[in-house]
Amino acid sequence: MTTPAHRIAFGDQLRRLRQEHGWASQEAFAHHAGLDRTYISLIERGRRNPTLDVIVRLAHALEVQPADLLTTLE
Amino acid sequence: MTTPAHRIAFGDQLRRLRQEHGWASQEAFAHHAGLDRTYISLIERGRRNPTLDVIVRLAHALEVQPADLLTTLE
Repeated sequence: MTTPAHRIAFGDQLRRLRQEHGWASQEAFAHHAGLDRTYISLIERGRRNPTLDVIVRLAHALEVQPADLLTTLE
Repeated sequence: MTTPAHRIAFGDQLRRLRQEHGWASQEAFAHHAGLDRTYISLIERGRRNPTLDVIVRLAHALEVQPADLLTTLE
């Protein structure tokens, strides 16, 4: 099953914002967001289908707007 | 359990965009989006936690950008 483009785009955007906002380490960011590091890694590789609640949790942890995580999706 | 504010905001935004884009009927929109009408109704009332795949499907059905469905979320 090919990975949907929007999951890849979301994962790339999460990684980009995480790094831009000073979270070089997935581990530290996962702890800060209250999520599992493996889950963050899988989302960033487009291999998970996060819910709205997770998207908002990630946005709050990054101190960005939830919509910012979807700006690269078409 | 109180309904998270972001689910209510998402539901309101979906209803607003659906109506603005000429889909007065949830039934017709649900059919167009390939989703169940009851599910659309529950999302619009903030009682469901849609995944990224569903958010993108809704956006495509409305012919808007996925981020447009989250602009009112904080």
